[in-house]
Amino acid sequence: MKFRPLHDRVVVRRVESEEKTAGGIIIPDTAKEKPSEGEIVAVGNGVRDDAGNLVALEVKAGDRVLFGKWSGTEVKIDGEDLLIMKESDIMGILG
Amino acid sequence: MKFRPLHDRVVVRRVESEEKTAGGIIIPDTAKEKPSEGEIVAVGNGVRDDAGNLVALEVKAGDRVLFGKWSGTEVKIDGEDLLIMKESDIMGILG
Amino acid sequence: MKFRPLHDRVVVRRVESEEKTAGGIIIPDTAKEKPSEGEIVAVGNGVRDDAGNLVALEVKAGDRVLFGKWSGTEVKIDGEDLLIMKESDIMGILG
Amino acid sequence: MKFRPLHDRVVVRRVESEEKTAGGIIIPDTAKEKPSEGEIVAVGNGVRDDAGNLVALEVKAGDRVLFGKWSGTEVKIDGEDLLIMKESDIMGILG
Amino acid sequence: MKFRPLHDRVVVRRVESEEKTAGGIIIPDTAKEKPSEGEIVAVGNGVRDDAGNLVALEVKAGDRVLFGKWSGTEVKIDGEDLLIMKESDIMGILG
Amino acid sequence: MKFRPLHDRVVVRRVESEEKTAGGIIIPDTAKEKPSEGEIVAVGNGVRDDAGNLVALEVKAGDRVLFGKWSGTEVKIDGEDLLIMKESDIMGILG
Amino acid sequence: MKFRPLHDRVVVRRVESEEKTAGGIIIPDTAKEKPSEGEIVAVGNGVRDDAGNLVALEVKAGDRVLFGKWSGTEVKIDGEDLLIMKESDIMGILG
Repeated sequence: MKFRPLHDRVVVRRVESEEKTAGGIIIPDTAKEKPSEGEIVAVGNGVRDDAGNLVALEVKAGDRVLFGKWSGTEVKIDGEDLLIMKESDIMGILG
Repeated sequence: MKFRPLHDRVVVRRVESEEKTAGGIIIPDTAKEKPSEGEIVAVGNGVRDDAGNLVALEVKAGDRVLFGKWSGTEVKIDGEDLLIMKESDIMGILG
Repeated sequence: MKFRPLHDRVVVRRVESEEKTAGGIIIPDTAKEKPSEGEIVAVGNGVRDDAGNLVALEVKAGDRVLFGKWSGTEVKIDGEDLLIMKESDIMGILG
Repeated sequence: MKFRPLHDRVVVRRVESEEKTAGGIIIPDTAKEKPSEGEIVAVGNGVRDDAGNLVALEVKAGDRVLFGKWSGTEVKIDGEDLLIMKESDIMGILG
Repeated sequence: MKFRPLHDRVVVRRVESEEKTAGGIIIPDTAKEKPSEGEIVAVGNGVRDDAGNLVALEVKAGDRVLFGKWSGTEVKIDGEDLLIMKESDIMGILG
Repeated sequence: MKFRPLHDRVVVRRVESEEKTAGGIIIPDTAKEKPSEGEIVAVGNGVRDDAGNLVALEVKAGDRVLFGKWSGTEVKIDGEDLLIMKESDIMGILG
Repeated sequence: MKFRPLHDRVVVRRVESEEKTAGGIIIPDTAKEKPSEGEIVAVGNGVRDDAGNLVALEVKAGDRVLFGKWSGTEVKIDGEDLLIMKESDIMGILG
């Protein structure tokens, strides 16, 4: 992979969640602001706290995550459609 | 349970409160912004203060809580309807 | 009482102030944003300052207080109508 | 006096300023946002700085002050019309 | 002078600047938001920084200053028209 | 090069990305807010953290970056069209 | 020069940039928000960081700078048209 996001940004590959898999996530179709499922592809180095220390992100490459449906900016890297967003757009880690 | 919320987010299972149970909570039907009752299913690791220390959340899994009626994002995890919200949307702990 | 508010929230029981008692509070009927009188029923553990120390609230259960008339969220706990609000909605302590 | 304001709030008794007294304050009638004159009746304990220390207010009971004409919330305490406002609404001390 | 402004407030006596004096300031008449010239009459004690230290103001009584034309609140103290404003409304010191 | 940006600003030379190069970036034409590709030409000295230390920027001259399509201010330096923007407008580093 | 700007303010003399000088800056005429070129005439003492230390400005008198076209307030000092603006309105230093 040839892209390193800055600071608290992450690169996410959107995953189409299967409906009704045992143990899987099913996003209700009728919800107004449904989260999407994705896989973390790359993460930034984190942000500095007030004491000047670099605080690493809580997610790492490979994590399966939920994020707000309209979060992030679409890019195509190595021919693949990906999303760049901030870690604060990530709701949590699956699995 | 297979979902870990990030930072100060929590996962809540909405509970339909029974009307008029002794010692129970009864949400007045006529109030404009009535809080809802729920049970904490999972909590994030907390947020860092200015000194860089991770401060754990005050709620924990199993807590019975009140939260703003329109708080949170609906998800379906393992076939169950749940809510992801921030701890700041939680008003307090019952029991 | 079976409810513990989180952080800087307090639970208040609204008190109908008697008119013209010596030493009592009389809220002028014509004022646009009149404060209400109430009694603190329960308080949260407080909030952390930038150094990470938990700072307790200045009000405590039993305090007679004035608060903004439209402050707080109405709940019914143990069959009693109460208000959940932030300490910053409390203007001061009577008595 | 039976009311203690919280944090950085103060209680003020509005004073009708006499016109043209030597050394007195005369509020121009035509100004759009004229300050009012008053006397501090009670003050809160102050607010904490980032290091967690309680910083006392700069005004004290008895101070004669100018404040924004529309500042504060009207209350009647012990049958007297008073104002509860924040210290930041006080412009300065006379005398 | 009988008025002490609070914190970072200052009292300013507006000065009508003479046109075209050598070394003087001439405010262009056509500018939309022209600064005004004035003299500092009194200053507050300053504000506290995050470490709790009181930081004095940079202007002092007697300073000739430029300030935003619409800055401040008009008061009449000892029969004289003056302005109360914050130090941040002062653009700089002449002379 | 004859321009040094201040603080957290950077100077970027916009690069027209080739379509479909192996390992290259292809910006999808249909996306609403597509990032642009560019090369960092000059960077500021960074900003100070709360402890007063100067924190250098994460990008450096020569870095190939993605940035928001509408970010920055256009200038012509030495006859070349360049962009001045803040590091926070940079999404990440390619390569 | 007889004017000292306060804190993080600077005084700038606008310079009409020549078109097409080798090594010079040419502002494109068609850009919507074109920066202007100017020379720093005077700078404030800087602002204090959270630790209370005075941090000097990065620009100094004599610096040739680019700034946002609509930045600053126009004044006439010693008969000369100048601009008072904040250092944050300065994009960078030429030369």
